[in-house]
Amino acid sequence: MVKEDEVPGRLEWRVNMPNGSSRILAPESRETCNRLQSLVMGIFLNIRGFLDKAWNLAVNEPKKVVHCLKVGLALSLVSVFYYMRPLYDGVGGNAMWAVMTVVVVFEYTVGSTLYKCVNRAIGTCLAGSLGIGVHWVASQAGDKFEPVILQVSVFLLAAAATFSRFIPTIKARFDYGAMIFILTFSLVSVSGYRVAKLVELAHERVSTIAIGASICIFITMILCPVWAGTEVHHLISNNLEKLADSLEGYAAENFSVDGSKNVHEKDSSKRLQGYKCVLNSKAAEESMANFARWEPAHGKFNFRHPWKQYLKIGASMRSCAYCIETLHGGINFNTETPEFLKKPLNDVCMRLGTSSSKVLKEMSSMIKTMKKSTKLDILVDEMNSSVEGLQNALKIFPSYQHIPTPDPATEEAPNGTEEPSLKPTALSLMEIVQMATLTSLLVEIASRIEGIVEEVKELATQAEFRDESSKKSKQTQTKINGNDGNEHEVTMKTLQKV
Amino acid sequence: MVKEDEVPGRLEWRVNMPNGSSRILAPESRETCNRLQSLVMGIFLNIRGFLDKAWNLAVNEPKKVVHCLKVGLALSLVSVFYYMRPLYDGVGGNAMWAVMTVVVVFEYTVGSTLYKCVNRAIGTCLAGSLGIGVHWVASQAGDKFEPVILQVSVFLLAAAATFSRFIPTIKARFDYGAMIFILTFSLVSVSGYRVAKLVELAHERVSTIAIGASICIFITMILCPVWAGTEVHHLISNNLEKLADSLEGYAAENFSVDGSKNVHEKDSSKRLQGYKCVLNSKAAEESMANFARWEPAHGKFNFRHPWKQYLKIGASMRSCAYCIETLHGGINFNTETPEFLKKPLNDVCMRLGTSSSKVLKEMSSMIKTMKKSTKLDILVDEMNSSVEGLQNALKIFPSYQHIPTPDPATEEAPNGTEEPSLKPTALSLMEIVQMATLTSLLVEIASRIEGIVEEVKELATQAEFRDESSKKSKQTQTKINGNDGNEHEVTMKTLQKV
Repeated sequence: MVKEDEVPGRLEWRVNMPNGSSRILAPESRETCNRLQSLVMGIFLNIRGFLDKAWNLAVNEPKKVVHCLKVGLALSLVSVFYYMRPLYDGVGGNAMWAVMTVVVVFEYTVGSTLYKCVNRAIGTCLAGSLGIGVHWVASQAGDKFEPVILQVSVFLLAAAATFSRFIPTIKARFDYGAMIFILTFSLVSVSGYRVAKLVELAHERVSTIAIGASICIFITMILCPVWAGTEVHHLISNNLEKLADSLEGYAAENFSVDGSKNVHEKDSSKRLQGYKCVLNSKAAEESMANFARWEPAHGKFNFRHPWKQYLKIGASMRSCAYCIETLHGGINFNTETPEFLKKPLNDVCMRLGTSSSKVLKEMSSMIKTMKKSTKLDILVDEMNSSVEGLQNALKIFPSYQHIPTPDPATEEAPNGTEEPSLKPTALSLMEIVQMATLTSLLVEIASRIEGIVEEVKELATQAEFRDESSKKSKQTQTKINGNDGNEHEVTMKTLQKV
Repeated sequence: MVKEDEVPGRLEWRVNMPNGSSRILAPESRETCNRLQSLVMGIFLNIRGFLDKAWNLAVNEPKKVVHCLKVGLALSLVSVFYYMRPLYDGVGGNAMWAVMTVVVVFEYTVGSTLYKCVNRAIGTCLAGSLGIGVHWVASQAGDKFEPVILQVSVFLLAAAATFSRFIPTIKARFDYGAMIFILTFSLVSVSGYRVAKLVELAHERVSTIAIGASICIFITMILCPVWAGTEVHHLISNNLEKLADSLEGYAAENFSVDGSKNVHEKDSSKRLQGYKCVLNSKAAEESMANFARWEPAHGKFNFRHPWKQYLKIGASMRSCAYCIETLHGGINFNTETPEFLKKPLNDVCMRLGTSSSKVLKEMSSMIKTMKKSTKLDILVDEMNSSVEGLQNALKIFPSYQHIPTPDPATEEAPNGTEEPSLKPTALSLMEIVQMATLTSLLVEIASRIEGIVEEVKELATQAEFRDESSKKSKQTQTKINGNDGNEHEVTMKTLQKV
């Protein structure tokens, strides 16, 4: 039978049998083999893809790798309490709680670690004392009522604490604490029925949690600390820059002459997409600003740094990003826009796009350096004058063009050298609509950028940004004095404001 | 001294002393009293505000109150294991783990509870067996190396598991499992050094966790279950309706005649803001769609319901909401728009706004009922023809108007009864720009709605939405046959598609 199947030059699967003979695999077996092979290959490729992803993550964000090592270190440290006999006897069998505290409490940023530590401490203490109190009351009530009182108190307090987790103000600050409260209260009031030495148990638990929590706080704050405050600060500043890049990229792509367009071609698609980061960073901003409130003074930030203001900046940035998204959704000077309008409008639009993006960049660097900027007001005035320029251009340009109209006389002699006569012809609205939308979105973006400016200035006031050095300010003033009167006036106003 | 201070008709604080005399409080004491009073009042008002908020939450979302009662019930049930002696002896002192499991695992939706249960089970089993394995290897290596091997393994595995939590695919599905893995592995490998009976301990822990988890699953699925799938389904459907309301409200406010405007005045501001919900619901959609994957078949949803498709619908809805947000940002037919254009454009814009919002509403009801809609394609065609109508209107309308030009002859006799002569005068671009923006945003919104339609149709295919009953479809056809030929043609095309 095997011989019948053999066809010269055909691929075969030959299996050597234990008795020395060899067999060719039947087609079904071969198919199974192929399937198995492709399955194994598929799994292998999947794993490789996963490892590649992990490797890229590690290379791009080494901070996260450091965090992992910190967790390992904290756990190793806390397990010392198990290995060293004197400590073990001191803390007792409850040392497990120290391990658990470290695992549960150790988070990526200092703020979230502190949030969890404080919440765990408050929740445990509150629930522990309440639990002991309820237990005492129950024990006074006699054997019959004791389990009833305990059960009812667990039911009521657990339900109430769970409900409190739905209330936004509690959820933002004490969500974890409420969970720990339920946990501890249940454990204390329930286990109290069995274990007589309740107070001792509570004392042990609190001391082990304190050990775990202090190890966490120590490691998270000393070894390469990741501050939630710094993260949200950088996030906002980077997002402002990304918005500026999106806007600048759009302007370069749509309004510039071909030369400068090619220069930006390479990175333009990445830069253009920057606004998407702004649209998607709401959740990150909120959680980090929330955690930042738990952090002590660090670096350039005081304890009472106005973190909430960052959320306001974020909101006004997103409102600006919505407009940019609409702009990117395929609105540009299309083929319908009449040529005689394209050239001059290109210039004013380019000017507005560039000046708007400059304002955004200045705010980004202002936040980054935490210095008040003397240039910001000048740039805003520049942006506003660009807006006015665009509006004036729109007012001046009529909605008709001079197009050559064939004269009945010349029509019969098409090769005539006579110039065709020019006649004003009204444009249809269709020809203008894209162009009008583009300009009006640019103006809207500029006005929303002013909203961001307000919020950033408010941040500068609340966080007491430093003034730029007086020396530098003087230099700017001298430089400006050389310019024309109009700009001089603007600057004087600006300097007075600052 | 007291008498000197007394002024008739003045408010006084008189304190009765123990010896029967009375004293008037000095001004400082009064001030302190006032301050204390206002402080107490402030605290009282704060607490009252908080309770009001909580009460409103409870009234508006009774489901959440039910959830709280369920948590209380689950905890009461699990504490039965402590009170009933036979059970207590069976499960041992580890019954604490059952309480802890209930507190930690019981979440608002069935999906998230199942997610946590499954993760906890997998994490515990994996880490437990690995921990025992490592412990066995360490015990073979001799007393000197045992702690070293254990320490190193804890360090490495904790770091690796922590890192895996940063990888998006792992984070979405197994974040909690990775944490439980670290916790259990640390506890097993560390406590194994002390407690000899490791396997027994692991067995006990697994069985208590199983008890806790099964109580949670039982209660969360039997008593008023809140399915994450149903929630995301309703969220998407409601958001579509809110978008439709926003658009309709905008159209009613800006394009309708005064009569219908007043009717909608009352609820319009609330309806207009609907798009904001869509902008802010990304995080909720994602987490709920993620949890929905863990849920078994329930109600109208199979186990493999295409939850990911909801996220795609959400994304295209947000893209549409960005446009609507831009539209709401103060763009309307303003005073600059010439009157002779306002009236006819009002009509076509109103038609487009209404037909777009109808498409959105139809999709919303299609998702709500999970039935394929024969009307949807008709409505989309209607919307597209409205877009064409608007574009045609723009093509037809010239950008000039006939305005009366005072004749030099009539100028001197302003009271003359002669009609002033009409002369075509070109509009400046400035007069058209707002109107052009408005129309072009409406067209963009319509094209983005088509994007939503695509995604919703994909959902209908993947989730195998039922066809509308053939009887109803026939009715529609008969009704349509009575109309004019053009609409008939559209419908026939549509019906063929369906």
